[in-house]
Amino acid sequence: MELSQIYAPVNHDLSQVEEALKKISQVDFPWLAQLLNQSLGSGGKRIRPALTFLSGIFYDYRVEFLMHMAVAIEMMHTATLIHDDAIDKSDTRRGRATIYKLWGTEAAILLGDYLFAKAGVEVSDTQSIRAIKLFSQTLMTISRGELNQAKNAFNINQTREDYYQRIYGKTASLFCLSTESGGILSQAPESAIGILKDFGYGLGMAFQIVDDILDFIGTEQELGKPAGSDLTQGTYTLPALMLNERYPQDNPVKRLYQDRNNPELVKLATEQVRNSNIVDDCYQIARYYCHEACDKIAKLPDNPGRRSLIDLADFVVQRRK
Amino acid sequence: MELSQIYAPVNHDLSQVEEALKKISQVDFPWLAQLLNQSLGSGGKRIRPALTFLSGIFYDYRVEFLMHMAVAIEMMHTATLIHDDAIDKSDTRRGRATIYKLWGTEAAILLGDYLFAKAGVEVSDTQSIRAIKLFSQTLMTISRGELNQAKNAFNINQTREDYYQRIYGKTASLFCLSTESGGILSQAPESAIGILKDFGYGLGMAFQIVDDILDFIGTEQELGKPAGSDLTQGTYTLPALMLNERYPQDNPVKRLYQDRNNPELVKLATEQVRNSNIVDDCYQIARYYCHEACDKIAKLPDNPGRRSLIDLADFVVQRRK
Repeated sequence: MELSQIYAPVNHDLSQVEEALKKISQVDFPWLAQLLNQSLGSGGKRIRPALTFLSGIFYDYRVEFLMHMAVAIEMMHTATLIHDDAIDKSDTRRGRATIYKLWGTEAAILLGDYLFAKAGVEVSDTQSIRAIKLFSQTLMTISRGELNQAKNAFNINQTREDYYQRIYGKTASLFCLSTESGGILSQAPESAIGILKDFGYGLGMAFQIVDDILDFIGTEQELGKPAGSDLTQGTYTLPALMLNERYPQDNPVKRLYQDRNNPELVKLATEQVRNSNIVDDCYQIARYYCHEACDKIAKLPDNPGRRSLIDLADFVVQRRK
Repeated sequence: MELSQIYAPVNHDLSQVEEALKKISQVDFPWLAQLLNQSLGSGGKRIRPALTFLSGIFYDYRVEFLMHMAVAIEMMHTATLIHDDAIDKSDTRRGRATIYKLWGTEAAILLGDYLFAKAGVEVSDTQSIRAIKLFSQTLMTISRGELNQAKNAFNINQTREDYYQRIYGKTASLFCLSTESGGILSQAPESAIGILKDFGYGLGMAFQIVDDILDFIGTEQELGKPAGSDLTQGTYTLPALMLNERYPQDNPVKRLYQDRNNPELVKLATEQVRNSNIVDDCYQIARYYCHEACDKIAKLPDNPGRRSLIDLADFVVQRRK
């Protein structure tokens, strides 16, 4: 199923998000306009704003407030990617040159800060103190997750629990914000807000696990960036962790973490994962998270929003990019 | 006059800010705790939180809301300094090693982001949508100002107007937020909020002009960082600009901007400014901004807060560090 089909109930509002992002790039400072255009205009799946809208369908769909939240979330997400690219010294993302590559660390830091701030302005227009506070709390969780990832780069002594905690911080927390805020801003009852948040959690966890799988099995063209990036950066993901669990004495991940920047070991680790049932096992865990998410949401009223969210859970596991 | 004397009406509340900042460092992630402690525990003049409290004295002084704003502003300020240090590759600030120096660019970016987020949580506890929005708008202005500064590094074709606009963005805007939010959160009438904001503007402009003078006449010990940093970074400040106005054909600033990283030219420019009346002329402009600020605030009721703000204007021009 194509994303545009899944997004059907909110496609119109998502196109307004694109318009809003375009408007944000229209500033009377040409360099800033260029930076904003490069970073906000790169498309992407817009899955987070879609989640906010779809989560708002169950109760009082107030598009004006949901719109501010959706735009704010997409901006915050973009800002974190810009900073990540500067940290990882990544040259490409979504097949385009990064801000870091084009204009350096300084521009990446300041543009990210500008977008965080602009996102803060946008979210304040939701008029909901609760949603505003949740927004900033989520950015705290994300930054902490990224710090955790930085601290544990090339650390092979991480457990599955460490891994799950880390991907919650860096990815699932923002999915939670997307769905939970949709509930809050549509005046959903607390129980429904909790269900929406749980759905976001499961979907976000699955999304990141699939991302981590794709880094092993995807092509550079599909990924929009070099494959094996996680191995190169020392980010200990589920496939790498499973390889180490199976061959604790010796394996190419272990060797890579001792002998960094060895592309042969990256290649070897990738091949060994591909030629095992690790990929299947990882997908099984991703599907488990999606099932959990869909089970939760089954408690909410049946409507086009719910059907889209369930289709989105399928999409997240099946996607190749 | 000592700062503690000037701050007398709000010293108690400022000590609570210190306590709050200490608490923020107490997180169950040792590396993050260490980073927070290094950055938030470095003292500093705490002039921005003091401004918020002093500006809150004129009407309904609601310490619980002012406290959240004061802490949020100090955190936002700290976050911008951490990012600036990473951009400028500065080793020291306030006589202490920077986060950049101790832990590198990655830690500096992510810690700054964490502090922006934590500041956003803190400001949401003011419960004032207006103050919250103003907070994020100010961070937009600051980031834009910093981008402007980055773009115009080593650009000698900047006018005084460009300079004033730039220092408004990078410094005075945050002073405006500090005073204006004090007015907003104490339920001041609109006219008084406007006056407080104008006071913050004048004080902030004077503060940055004095900062820019001190970079020419201060010692490394006074500044807590190497003197001549602005020249080295290519930041075109008022003393440099005046030197270029006086000797448009040839001067050491002009030569430095063509032949960067020449410490002899930094020394020469510094000496030439010191041996001219440029320093006096710059101080005159700083004093002008302070006078304007104090004239404005004369329209507000006389009280210990107003007297402190006026004393603070004196302090800002007389300070050596």
